Amino acid sequence: MADTPLPPGFDEYKMARARRAFESALGHRKVFFEELDRTGYQDKFAVDDALHHPAGAIAPESVEEVQAAVRIANQYLLPLWPISRGKNLGYGASAPLLAGSVVLDMSRMKKIEFDEHLGTVVVEPGVGFYDLYDYLQANDLPFWLSTPGNSWGSVMGNALDRGVGYTPYGEHTKQICGMEVVLPDGDLVRTGMGAFAGSDTWQAYPYGYGPAWDQMFVQSNFGIVTKMGLWLMPEPESLMGMDVEFDRPEDLKAMIDTIAPLRRERVLTQSPSIGNWLRAAAVLTTRDEWTDKPGALGEDVIDKIRKTFNIGWWGVSLRLYGREEVNKAAYKILEKAMNDIDPMLIKPTSWVKGEPLEHTGWTGTPMTFPMQNVNWYGGRGGHIGFSPIIPQDGTKALEQFRRTYARYQEYGMDYQGSFAFGERHMINVNAMIFDKDDPEMMKKVDPFFRTLVQDAKEQGYGEYRTHLDYMDLVADSYDFNGGALARLNGKVKDALDPNGILAPGKSGIWPERLRGSNAGGGRRS
Amino acid sequence: MADTPLPPGFDEYKMARARRAFESALGHRKVFFEELDRTGYQDKFAVDDALHHPAGAIAPESVEEVQAAVRIANQYLLPLWPISRGKNLGYGASAPLLAGSVVLDMSRMKKIEFDEHLGTVVVEPGVGFYDLYDYLQANDLPFWLSTPGNSWGSVMGNALDRGVGYTPYGEHTKQICGMEVVLPDGDLVRTGMGAFAGSDTWQAYPYGYGPAWDQMFVQSNFGIVTKMGLWLMPEPESLMGMDVEFDRPEDLKAMIDTIAPLRRERVLTQSPSIGNWLRAAAVLTTRDEWTDKPGALGEDVIDKIRKTFNIGWWGVSLRLYGREEVNKAAYKILEKAMNDIDPMLIKPTSWVKGEPLEHTGWTGTPMTFPMQNVNWYGGRGGHIGFSPIIPQDGTKALEQFRRTYARYQEYGMDYQGSFAFGERHMINVNAMIFDKDDPEMMKKVDPFFRTLVQDAKEQGYGEYRTHLDYMDLVADSYDFNGGALARLNGKVKDALDPNGILAPGKSGIWPERLRGSNAGGGRRS
Repeated sequence: MADTPLPPGFDEYKMARARRAFESALGHRKVFFEELDRTGYQDKFAVDDALHHPAGAIAPESVEEVQAAVRIANQYLLPLWPISRGKNLGYGASAPLLAGSVVLDMSRMKKIEFDEHLGTVVVEPGVGFYDLYDYLQANDLPFWLSTPGNSWGSVMGNALDRGVGYTPYGEHTKQICGMEVVLPDGDLVRTGMGAFAGSDTWQAYPYGYGPAWDQMFVQSNFGIVTKMGLWLMPEPESLMGMDVEFDRPEDLKAMIDTIAPLRRERVLTQSPSIGNWLRAAAVLTTRDEWTDKPGALGEDVIDKIRKTFNIGWWGVSLRLYGREEVNKAAYKILEKAMNDIDPMLIKPTSWVKGEPLEHTGWTGTPMTFPMQNVNWYGGRGGHIGFSPIIPQDGTKALEQFRRTYARYQEYGMDYQGSFAFGERHMINVNAMIFDKDDPEMMKKVDPFFRTLVQDAKEQGYGEYRTHLDYMDLVADSYDFNGGALARLNGKVKDALDPNGILAPGKSGIWPERLRGSNAGGGRRS
Repeated sequence: MADTPLPPGFDEYKMARARRAFESALGHRKVFFEELDRTGYQDKFAVDDALHHPAGAIAPESVEEVQAAVRIANQYLLPLWPISRGKNLGYGASAPLLAGSVVLDMSRMKKIEFDEHLGTVVVEPGVGFYDLYDYLQANDLPFWLSTPGNSWGSVMGNALDRGVGYTPYGEHTKQICGMEVVLPDGDLVRTGMGAFAGSDTWQAYPYGYGPAWDQMFVQSNFGIVTKMGLWLMPEPESLMGMDVEFDRPEDLKAMIDTIAPLRRERVLTQSPSIGNWLRAAAVLTTRDEWTDKPGALGEDVIDKIRKTFNIGWWGVSLRLYGREEVNKAAYKILEKAMNDIDPMLIKPTSWVKGEPLEHTGWTGTPMTFPMQNVNWYGGRGGHIGFSPIIPQDGTKALEQFRRTYARYQEYGMDYQGSFAFGERHMINVNAMIFDKDDPEMMKKVDPFFRTLVQDAKEQGYGEYRTHLDYMDLVADSYDFNGGALARLNGKVKDALDPNGILAPGKSGIWPERLRGSNAGGGRRS
């Protein structure tokens, strides 16, 4: 207990008083400050989790309790770090950026309100993808989820960090329609039409009247979202598509230059993701079955693995959702486009309402098996992701791949990369898989990540999302006019959170009292 | 000159000094304070334009000049009212809310930067729909605009007030991707990926890293938008659809309950608008050709007009954009759906790339003829619009129509109404057309409007956009938790605009020094 992590301005005595205040407001069984509790909120994937140890955690069960916790935090100038279900793996999970913060664990708030007419839902932070899926099944509701690759997290939390899925509703942050938010001063606000008391269009129209706030509470620390409206896809009559494999690294160019116009034209309305052989292989096998040599795998081993499982260097899945006859017409367009660029393999897939449904991300089924990739090296596996936004341009994407691939080889790591389409952008996710029991490997992760950030900066490519360790680094790379956006965010932060209690450092936004080079506790940049 | 309108805290002498400062910073030919200038910036459609007379206007031609003007305004505590092209007719046009404000006329800033690969554009505030259309034509670019019913306004201004058009890109505010903004303190910020210096994805990915600001500058007074990125629709291979007329007022219910699910399912991806007979007739004829009786037209006259022009009580146009074979399959679905609800008339339409193009809103052609409806009564015509968001529910929409129609009859006005689909909401636009030379009629407009606001409030229906005269009234109707959203907006306003110089009162947002019942000058509520 001697080494309870403490935030700036705290000693053990002051923290004990804050803890007492939480216990008095919320009751003992919602307040966790024992060593074992703290361990439970650590980031299992962090390169150095000690930078992000919380002082403790509290788990309110109602909006009123959240407001009470916020009042106490203001009184003690105690940083709170809100999490939904804490499964933001690779980006920090349940751990706070600033060591000594108190985790505000919202996972016990699990209400679901569904509008069966519109296909919209209001969820609280604790509602997981499995919870919502079960709800749809139990109530026989004709709507499909969009789920991320690892679905044990929170529906709200994922949308709040701009996570993505596989269906036409796969840009989760775009499906947000109306929020309820506890502000840092404890005030309770509803956005969009929710600001109009008695409105039944809260989940129908996202903007309301005047400035629209929803996206200001995304990837920010301006408020604690206690309810979020989201749109769900009506169950389609038909699902058609194909899984396509390509044989050579350089096929990436043609894949992107063929798929991107179809996406912009909206022949495709979901967002395909091109993944390399390791994304497919890492859930089927482990590295030690193929080699015991350290360093990046050579092409000979890669070829052997690919041949064994019949997977391309790159693979992509395309899917069409909607009326059967419409899908059939669109399928022919996709088929011709893919055949024109010499695929290694096309595997068609087709489903019509009434048939048994394949349980995958493309049908909105929650899943966790992609997470198996962290077992690739053996040992205690983990990963962080480097995820810049890049243009929809095959030549530039291929250059980005080659540059990054060379860096993986330089640092002796196996490359797992993907290129996921938005309507006009791509997200290039580079997963750094590692073995936390391999200290040599772990030493390389931080310099490797920083090298990739630097390489990308030179191309004008900025990250859309990042791990706690790199939030300042990435925020600083958004540097137009000497960091004008950061100045603007700072002004709003100080106006809404004058005591600087909410998630200090989230997305590089620090409150006034903790701003500057020495204040940030566990900051690494 | 004795009655130059002046904002709070100004006398003629102080205003003359401010004018001098503008002239010195911008040069004489960009500063307009003569009586004739002021008249040019009045709201021609206002019920009482005297409430909104500006003191003068300035027309900067560069971002640096906008920043210089903002610095002067801060120095003098002088309210600036930014306009793009000032064509926000029915909502205030070019006039400021607060009499005595200085209009910041941005119409001379007219740069267009087009990305031919992505189909995105960066426009300055002065770029009109005609300008951008001409640009596409002159450069033979395979992209279509989405234009509003009256297209002489600014592309940016329309998106900033959440205007709508007819194509799948018709929710203009949704097409915004990245902005450049002069903040009230003169700082210059770029949003989204524009915050990343050297990025070429500014118009590709709207969110950037951290909280996303674009919608905070929409319908607000938090900054002056100097550049806006927008997405344009790739020219489709085919355009198919139908204009459908229905005979009876009560057909509205079936129309909505049939079209709305097709919209949510995305068989339809544009946003159809159901309009009553007068929307069609008012551009074909004038009232005096049918009757000289005052008060609302009777059903006998309405029938006569409808028979003459073969128009339904309600009409709607449905359009499909994309590949020809896909559109053909979708067309069959629309045709069956419409035939199932007993239309009076279906007029199919079809176009394939290479054929001559019909010049309408559905092909993104700018137009102004719908504006002819203001000539309906004769005299100096005008209109204001009452535009609540309502649910996609035929029964509720029919009730809303009947309630509103009865009010039109009570106030003796001819009903022009429409029900425009979003993906999950509807906008019920009620145009109040009037003759400004008819003092009896003009006296009724204000009480009539307030009655409609009150009726709608009782149903939980709030406006998405409103005239200067009613911005406070509408903002006050967004009253959840005692006006929590207004408190939040006020905090941000004061943090970003401590001197309260930018568009005081816009969307009900007042700066601290002008907040409260007596400060607002021309406020009517």
